[in-house]
Amino acid sequence: MSHVEFRTSPANYRHWRLTIEGPVATIAMDVDEQGGLVPGYELKLNSYDLGVDIELYDAVQRLRFEHPEVKTVVLTSGKEKIFCAGANIRMLAASAHSWKVNFCKFTNETRNGIEDATENSGQTYLAALNGTASGGGYELALACDKILLVDDRSSVVSLPELPLLGVLPGTGGLTRVVDKRHVRRDLADYFSTKSEGIGGKKAVTWKLVDEVVPRVRWQEVIAERSVASASSASRLPGGPAIELTALSKTRTDTSVSYTYVSASLDHGRAVAEITVSGPGMSRAGAHDIPEISAYERGTSAADLPSSMDDVYAAGAGFWSLAVARELDDLILDLRTNETEIGTWVLKTAGDAARVLAYDELLLAHCDSDWLAREIVLYWKRTLKRLDVTSRSLIALIEPGSCFAGSLLELALAADRSYMLFGVFEEVDPTVPPNTGAPAAVTVGPANLGPLPMGNGLTRLQTRFLGDAEGMTAVEKAAGEPLEAEEAEKLGLVTFAPDDIDWDEEVRIAVEERASFSPDALTGLEANYRFAGPETIETKIFGRLTAWQNWIFYRPNASGPDGALRAYGTGRRADFDRKRV
Amino acid sequence: MSHVEFRTSPANYRHWRLTIEGPVATIAMDVDEQGGLVPGYELKLNSYDLGVDIELYDAVQRLRFEHPEVKTVVLTSGKEKIFCAGANIRMLAASAHSWKVNFCKFTNETRNGIEDATENSGQTYLAALNGTASGGGYELALACDKILLVDDRSSVVSLPELPLLGVLPGTGGLTRVVDKRHVRRDLADYFSTKSEGIGGKKAVTWKLVDEVVPRVRWQEVIAERSVASASSASRLPGGPAIELTALSKTRTDTSVSYTYVSASLDHGRAVAEITVSGPGMSRAGAHDIPEISAYERGTSAADLPSSMDDVYAAGAGFWSLAVARELDDLILDLRTNETEIGTWVLKTAGDAARVLAYDELLLAHCDSDWLAREIVLYWKRTLKRLDVTSRSLIALIEPGSCFAGSLLELALAADRSYMLFGVFEEVDPTVPPNTGAPAAVTVGPANLGPLPMGNGLTRLQTRFLGDAEGMTAVEKAAGEPLEAEEAEKLGLVTFAPDDIDWDEEVRIAVEERASFSPDALTGLEANYRFAGPETIETKIFGRLTAWQNWIFYRPNASGPDGALRAYGTGRRADFDRKRV
Repeated sequence: MSHVEFRTSPANYRHWRLTIEGPVATIAMDVDEQGGLVPGYELKLNSYDLGVDIELYDAVQRLRFEHPEVKTVVLTSGKEKIFCAGANIRMLAASAHSWKVNFCKFTNETRNGIEDATENSGQTYLAALNGTASGGGYELALACDKILLVDDRSSVVSLPELPLLGVLPGTGGLTRVVDKRHVRRDLADYFSTKSEGIGGKKAVTWKLVDEVVPRVRWQEVIAERSVASASSASRLPGGPAIELTALSKTRTDTSVSYTYVSASLDHGRAVAEITVSGPGMSRAGAHDIPEISAYERGTSAADLPSSMDDVYAAGAGFWSLAVARELDDLILDLRTNETEIGTWVLKTAGDAARVLAYDELLLAHCDSDWLAREIVLYWKRTLKRLDVTSRSLIALIEPGSCFAGSLLELALAADRSYMLFGVFEEVDPTVPPNTGAPAAVTVGPANLGPLPMGNGLTRLQTRFLGDAEGMTAVEKAAGEPLEAEEAEKLGLVTFAPDDIDWDEEVRIAVEERASFSPDALTGLEANYRFAGPETIETKIFGRLTAWQNWIFYRPNASGPDGALRAYGTGRRADFDRKRV
Repeated sequence: MSHVEFRTSPANYRHWRLTIEGPVATIAMDVDEQGGLVPGYELKLNSYDLGVDIELYDAVQRLRFEHPEVKTVVLTSGKEKIFCAGANIRMLAASAHSWKVNFCKFTNETRNGIEDATENSGQTYLAALNGTASGGGYELALACDKILLVDDRSSVVSLPELPLLGVLPGTGGLTRVVDKRHVRRDLADYFSTKSEGIGGKKAVTWKLVDEVVPRVRWQEVIAERSVASASSASRLPGGPAIELTALSKTRTDTSVSYTYVSASLDHGRAVAEITVSGPGMSRAGAHDIPEISAYERGTSAADLPSSMDDVYAAGAGFWSLAVARELDDLILDLRTNETEIGTWVLKTAGDAARVLAYDELLLAHCDSDWLAREIVLYWKRTLKRLDVTSRSLIALIEPGSCFAGSLLELALAADRSYMLFGVFEEVDPTVPPNTGAPAAVTVGPANLGPLPMGNGLTRLQTRFLGDAEGMTAVEKAAGEPLEAEEAEKLGLVTFAPDDIDWDEEVRIAVEERASFSPDALTGLEANYRFAGPETIETKIFGRLTAWQNWIFYRPNASGPDGALRAYGTGRRADFDRKRV
């Protein structure tokens, strides 16, 4: 298969219909059976594959930016009698393990994004199950704030993965059933072993759905609930919609580049070097790229955006939003298409003061302006995507970088960071863009609250878990550019080698990483990145996903006689009965 | 291999030396290289296998009951220059997946037990690392309250699993490093990739150990720290030590029986039926078994123990303690020896009022008497062992059962419970021990706090997560025998079929369970049993263990060219480099 591309737009949707009536949007799933991303399966009964979910993700994102007037999103089906049959089973059975796991990760992130919109954006999702929702179909409904099910004696909700396929519901179902909807654990156990599902009043009594509605009253009740939900939602005011214009992206076998973000891929060393440029500092330092908005072209402080009007005027070209989109797309691209590139080296280039100024403008308005909030929330989600990425992340902090505020989060998300002590001796400080100044990092307001991880803590709080003194010292240093010695002393960077040791230390770190077991690294990182409390979200990516990965990989599921492979063939799965 | 037996005693230890001086006990690890539980490996460098850990578990348990005077336990090595090299690698490489996973589970439980002794029993563990502690050796130290390391320029602590073996430290290491000891996550990352480990002052600065001590001052400092720890520990007062006399156990291929606990094993149906008898009601209803203490023989309320003196007099024969020990041994036996028996049916037989009376006596004294507290803590640990057991648990609540207080926890720990509505029609109520009374369950004080799960909540709180009303209703009903209709209404049992439906419903539940993928059931149960908050303990059994299981099973670790198999052969592991 060629590269999977995550960029799309409503005009290109094959599987979803997005309609908007005032404050209510409806996303109707109407999967094109012949529209599978990969040959070899038909997407019957509104079952989905990665391609279907890419469109859903796009729709959820666009609703936030392109439809600020929307306060309620009704998620329903465009087909009769079936809401969604979940992830396509033939697709799963035919997929490589790495594909299955990456697919589940992305679908989980989209569902978390739906919850984020409901909780933080004033766009509340209602699941309108006009037919049966099974497996991933019910899990999609679980991500919504409320679930309404048609009461027609045949439509049910179900999680048939265990009895039919010998795997778990892989998109947060188990966690949300007990931790979000508070279905009693023994009833949840019964429900998850009953492939025929549960509908009608019992589904309400057991808290599997919020309401069942006779078919004759269906349209009317959905309309009522949508309007009621919209009238109580608290979408922030602000300026007009922002169009998420097509990302400018150039993709070759060895590089991916956008306006501000670029990655060079070294397959031999299994490393991607990712560089994020600060405002006014697009890739290669060029200031004449047409995609860069007026506010980005200047290099002096006088050109900084000074009000939300400037942000609206820049639209999708506004640096903070543009970088979030580019980084988001890059993460998805590399995760899916470059599975053998196991280490991502993270760099930045630009002016830290400008980064902090952009942060400051957004944070000053993120409680009063919908767009400011949306951009901050998008950064939050993108950084979370980085946190759950199964790649080693190494930040390199060098002279000319701008690890400050929102961009410092990249270094804090990394498994390790190296910061140059002093300057590179061979670089001539009189030749621009070199300034002769050593690298510095700056803690800003963006690091102290608005960009929490999935565990509910900021990356700094997670880093200084149980070390209140260390955390306080860092907070006190906020706003000051910290050179290597001080940054290391404060615990903001892992190592601070000087020019003599730099190349060797960095080379060893990167080469060593490539020599280790990729699986063990994934496990190590998944544990160390999530110190501290667990939430529904971290449980989904931790406890649930890890079990699911194990189950997916076992012959009882994926072996020639496993349940996933036997499904639909008429053969019975042949299990190794040993309990592990 | 024949059955693995978990019962042992200090006289039979091959690998540990237990010495006691006043309030300080020393457990010295001195592994017999030739003493492996299974042929095929030598236990060099104080490496361990299940047999070594069974002895450690026994020692930890006995210290609590047989040495109430001990307030500090020094865990050290009886060998020069090496504390412990961790789990034996050749043993791991040669073991079946199910053996590795079960072995890790048991070792984890023992380390959690060490932390429980430190936190709740006033027996504080100090790790005295008189030589290098690597892998599982360092993880054992991590379970102690303080870690002292000899400073001799060669002794280090290390977690070399990832770089050397391509797996994770499997005994809580990653979780405890960041969540308990608060090692900064990036330093933890570096530490866990550095097979040569870290010693000296850096080990202290990074919080990997609490103190490093020059070898010349080693004995002196350990003695000082032990005495200081003992003088500040708060072991409860009470009566004299209790001897944990040998358990009376009869084991055949189809049954395991003790005084109060018995199990019949049906390999064809893959079911074990476990019956726990209440006080005064040993197995088969016989009252003349010599192991039953005087207090247990009576059947009338007048014979109930009335003070802690009675508990001390009964000693290990005291019903509550005897049942905890028997159940503990049975769980370990079935987990290890009967991996194909995937469902455990849990039953009780006896007088609920007597169970509640025994509970009451212990709970009245568990804040003032060390033995009362120890017995309650033992129940807590045993029930937690049930919670993390990878078997389906189905409780059957029938007439003549005594699911009350501490025994009701068995039904609350189960994945599902079935309670008979009414009575069995074919049973003649005039023939003893039948009484003609329908089954009842009784919520007691034991269900409302003293026996929390690993997530920190009671099983009732976990069951009624997010349902404060349901929880309050159950609390209000405490003390009253609740028949099936009421128990079902209160949400205490899953289903309450009557005599007409009982056999069929129970049969289907059990047979269905045996037809499902054992792996998927393990994952389902591991998720549904731990709704609500996560703690260090649940993270170890959830996030960490699940990842480790996956990694263990992947060819990169356990395949013919995997790191675990290649270790020590001079061959390099050949990894599939795809990141998953």
